[in-house]
Amino acid sequence: MNSIINKKIEDPLFQTVLTIMSDISDLRRINALLGWDQETYMPDGSWEARAKQSQTLEILEHKLFINDDTKKLVDKIKNNKAERSSHHQRMLEIFVKDYEKNAKIPTSFVENYSIAKSKANESWKKARKKGEFNLFEKDLDNLIELTIQKTNHLGYEKNPYNALLNEYEEGANYDSISEIFSNLKTETIRLSKKYISKENFQLPNADKFNLSKKKQLKLCKEIAKALCFDFFNGRLDESHHPFTTSFSKYDVRITTRFDTKDIFNALYSTIHEVGHGLYEQGIDNSLYNTFAEEGTSLGIHESQSLIWENNICRSLEFWVWAMPLLRKYFPSEFSEVSEMDMYKVCNQVSYSFIRTESDELTYNLHIILRFEIENELINRKLKTKDIPERWNELFKEMTGLTIENNNNGCLQDIHWSFGGFGYFPTYSLGKLYAASLMKQMEIEFDVWQNVKNGEFMTLRTWLRNNIHQWGRLKTPKQIIQNVANKNLNSIDFVSYLEDKLDKIYS
Amino acid sequence: MNSIINKKIEDPLFQTVLTIMSDISDLRRINALLGWDQETYMPDGSWEARAKQSQTLEILEHKLFINDDTKKLVDKIKNNKAERSSHHQRMLEIFVKDYEKNAKIPTSFVENYSIAKSKANESWKKARKKGEFNLFEKDLDNLIELTIQKTNHLGYEKNPYNALLNEYEEGANYDSISEIFSNLKTETIRLSKKYISKENFQLPNADKFNLSKKKQLKLCKEIAKALCFDFFNGRLDESHHPFTTSFSKYDVRITTRFDTKDIFNALYSTIHEVGHGLYEQGIDNSLYNTFAEEGTSLGIHESQSLIWENNICRSLEFWVWAMPLLRKYFPSEFSEVSEMDMYKVCNQVSYSFIRTESDELTYNLHIILRFEIENELINRKLKTKDIPERWNELFKEMTGLTIENNNNGCLQDIHWSFGGFGYFPTYSLGKLYAASLMKQMEIEFDVWQNVKNGEFMTLRTWLRNNIHQWGRLKTPKQIIQNVANKNLNSIDFVSYLEDKLDKIYS
Repeated sequence: MNSIINKKIEDPLFQTVLTIMSDISDLRRINALLGWDQETYMPDGSWEARAKQSQTLEILEHKLFINDDTKKLVDKIKNNKAERSSHHQRMLEIFVKDYEKNAKIPTSFVENYSIAKSKANESWKKARKKGEFNLFEKDLDNLIELTIQKTNHLGYEKNPYNALLNEYEEGANYDSISEIFSNLKTETIRLSKKYISKENFQLPNADKFNLSKKKQLKLCKEIAKALCFDFFNGRLDESHHPFTTSFSKYDVRITTRFDTKDIFNALYSTIHEVGHGLYEQGIDNSLYNTFAEEGTSLGIHESQSLIWENNICRSLEFWVWAMPLLRKYFPSEFSEVSEMDMYKVCNQVSYSFIRTESDELTYNLHIILRFEIENELINRKLKTKDIPERWNELFKEMTGLTIENNNNGCLQDIHWSFGGFGYFPTYSLGKLYAASLMKQMEIEFDVWQNVKNGEFMTLRTWLRNNIHQWGRLKTPKQIIQNVANKNLNSIDFVSYLEDKLDKIYS
Repeated sequence: MNSIINKKIEDPLFQTVLTIMSDISDLRRINALLGWDQETYMPDGSWEARAKQSQTLEILEHKLFINDDTKKLVDKIKNNKAERSSHHQRMLEIFVKDYEKNAKIPTSFVENYSIAKSKANESWKKARKKGEFNLFEKDLDNLIELTIQKTNHLGYEKNPYNALLNEYEEGANYDSISEIFSNLKTETIRLSKKYISKENFQLPNADKFNLSKKKQLKLCKEIAKALCFDFFNGRLDESHHPFTTSFSKYDVRITTRFDTKDIFNALYSTIHEVGHGLYEQGIDNSLYNTFAEEGTSLGIHESQSLIWENNICRSLEFWVWAMPLLRKYFPSEFSEVSEMDMYKVCNQVSYSFIRTESDELTYNLHIILRFEIENELINRKLKTKDIPERWNELFKEMTGLTIENNNNGCLQDIHWSFGGFGYFPTYSLGKLYAASLMKQMEIEFDVWQNVKNGEFMTLRTWLRNNIHQWGRLKTPKQIIQNVANKNLNSIDFVSYLEDKLDKIYS
C-alpha cells in the first residue's frame, strides 16, 4: 500500500506542523501509558503521585500547543493558499481545528480539571468497592461543575450539552440525537415486548461452571489472534473495566475481564476491544505521530468494536468456527453444548442491570437513560446527590426492575469518573453505523462463508481499506457516505436485529 | 517520624526551587515508567515509537531545567545568605549542583544521546538472542563515541573516565578506586586459591529440578513481603535483567528472573532488588518529588541491595528461617535438603562466566575486568570491535576459563547498552560499604537472633533510620562516617568474607 500522506515533500509550513504534532502526540501517548498502567499494574498506594504526574504532562502538552508561536502558525496556515493534496489540506485543517478548540481552554482550567479527574477516578473505585455512591459524590460533583465550566469555555448553541457531544462526535447535537434515539426507543420497546418473555435460553449446567481465569485468558488471546489483532504491536491484559488504548499504531493495548461463571463476559469484552484495536493498528503508517493517527470519531470507533462483537461474532457462523476452540480449553463444560445453544444464549434478549452485560437490543435503553441524565446534569436540572434516585427511577420506568445496589446502577461505569460526559451516546451511534457498514459488506462479498471458515482477514482487510487506514483524514459523515452511500440512520440496525431475533425466537 | 524537610516554611526562594524540582521530577519519573514498561510488558513492535517518546521527554525535561530563568535562580541562590536549616541548605546545594552539571550538556547532545541509547538497547537485545557481538557493535561504538563527547562536556581532571565515575559516585576517581581495587584483587585471588578447589557443594538431585516459574514467583513475593518490601507502594515483575525503578517513593518496582533448574537465581535476584526497593520506599515523605528523593550514590544504593542479598540472606540464620517456606512451595525437591546444604551451596566459591550468578568473592573480578575495559575504551586505548577479544583475554588471565559464547562474556550485561559506563565499579564499592555497615549493625543489636526469627523489620528500621530516610540529604561519605565512623575500605569486607568462608570450608 502506498502511503496516504507523503511526509517528505517540499512544503516548509506542512513540515513545521508535522514536527509540532509529533511532539504533542508523544506527550498525549505517554499520558495514555500512565493511564493504562494505572488501570492494570500500578500499586494502589501510588494514585496521588500518578495524578500529579499526569497533570504535569497535561499542562506541558497544553503549553507546548497553545502559545503565541502556534497562534502565528495557525494564522499563517489560514492565509496560505498554496496548492496541496486534499490529504495534506485536511491534515492542516485538523491541526487548526484542534488548536482552536484547545486555545479556548485556559491553562489554569486544565490544571484543575486534570487533578479533579484523577480524584474522581480514585473515589469511584472506592465507592464501587462498597457500592456507596456518597463516597464518589463529592468528587463527581466537582467534576460536573468543572465540566459545565468547560462547556462555557468551548461555547455552544442552544444547549451546553452540545459542546460535550461535539467533543466525541463532530457535528452531533442534543436535538438530532434525541430524534434518532426517540425512534430507536420506540423500536427497542416494541422488539423487547416481542421477545423478552418468549423463551429463556440457557447453557446446560452453566450454574456449575468454574471456568479458570488463566484458560479464559489463553482462549481470548487465541481468538484475538484469529481476528487478526497483532500482538507484535499490541497486548491483552486484565482490568476492571475493559478498554483499548494506543501509544501509537505500533503499540495498541486492549484489556478484558473474567467471570468464572460466564464465558461470554471475557469473550465478548475481548472481541469488542479487538475491534477497537484493529482500527488503531490499521491506521496508515504515514499518519504515525500526527493528529490524524486516531479514530475519526467515537461513534465510528464504536462501530468498529461493535461490528465484531455483535454483527460478526454473535452469528451462528461465528460459533460454527469458534466451538472447537472453546471445547479445546473447556472440554467438560462445552462438549454437550451446540453451536445453536451458544448462538441463542449470546443473543438472548433480557433486561440486565449492567450496560456491558446487556444484549444488543436492550443495551440502547441503558444509553438513552445516561443520555437523558447527562443532559439534565449539564443543564443543572438534576443535582449530583440525586443521581442514584433519578437513575433508579428511569431504569424502573424502562424495564420494570428495581436497583438495590448502586454497583448495579449509577456506579457501574468508569466514564463519568474521567469526565466523559457526552461519551455514552456514541455507543448507540456505533451500533447504527455498524449495521449500515455490515449491510454494505454483505453486498460486496460472502461474509458468512469467510466467518464460518475463520477467514477473518478478508473482513479486516475490507474494514481497513474502507475505514481504518484513513484515521481522521475522513470525517464520520464521509466514511458512511463513501462506504455505504447513506447517512446515519436507525433503519439498518432495527431491520438487521429483528431479522436475527425472529430466526432465533421462531 | 517528623518530616526531615519542612516544605511549608516562609522562604519564597526555597518554594520556587521546590516547584521546579517537582515538575522536573515528574518528567524523570514518567520516563522511568516508559523504561520499566519497555523491559516488562511493551510489545516488541513498539521500540522505535517508544524511543521517540522517551527522547521527547528527555528533551523537554532538559529545556524545562536548563534555561535562563533557572540560571537566574541559581545565581540568586548563590548570592542568597538567608539563614536556613542545614537540610534546606543542602536541598538548594543539590539543585545548584544538578543544574550546573546539566547546563554543561547541550540540548542537541541530549537528543542524539537519547536516541543512541534506545538504539543500542534494542540491538543489544538482538545481539543477545544470537550471541553475536557484531549485531551490537555499531550502535555501541556510536554510544561510546557520544560518551567520550559527554566527558568533554562535563569536564574532568586527568582522566576522562573520572567524569563518568563521578556521575554515579560523587568524588570518585580512577586512581583512588584503582588503589582500593588493587588490594581487593590481591585479596580476592588469595582467598580464591584458598577455597576454590576445596569442595564442590551441591544440592541433592538438583540436576533433576524443574521448578515451576509460577511457584517461584509466589515464593519470591512471600519472601519480599517478609523482608518488608511494601506491595501497596510497589510491584514485582519479570524481566530479562532484574532491576529496580521508582516512579516516586510511593511506586517502587522491582523485577526478577527465573531458572527452572536453579532456585537461587530468582531468589537472590529478588532479594537484591528488594534491598534497592527498601531504600527507595524508605526515603522520608517530605523529600517526595524533590531531587533528594533518591539514593545518595550508586555505591550506597548497591550497599543496600547487597547487605540483604549477601550479608543478611546468605547466612545460616536466614536459611533456618527460610527453609520451611521453600519446602512449602517445593516439598518434593527440598524435603531432603538441610539449612546447612543451602548455606553451603549459596556461598560456594567458584568461577562463573556470568557476573550476576557469581559468588560474593569472585564477583569482584568481574567488576575489576569491566573497570579496566571501560577505562581503556574511554581513553581510546581499546577499539569497540576488539571488546570481545580483550574481555575474553582478561577473563582467562583472572580465572583460567575460556569464553566461547559472547552471551557468557561481553554481551551479558545491559549496562553499556544504556550508556552506563562508570556504573560497574559501584557494585564493588557497594560490597565494601555493606560490610562496614553490617559490622556496625552487629555491634548495635543482635542481628542474627532477629534473622533466625524472621524479624526483618528490626533490620529494616535500622537501615531506614541510618541510611534510607535521608535520600540525597547526606553524602555517601557522611553516611558511612555518621553510621560506622570510618571511611570506605576493603578491610571489613575481606575479614567478613574470610570468616564466613573459613567456617563453611572447614
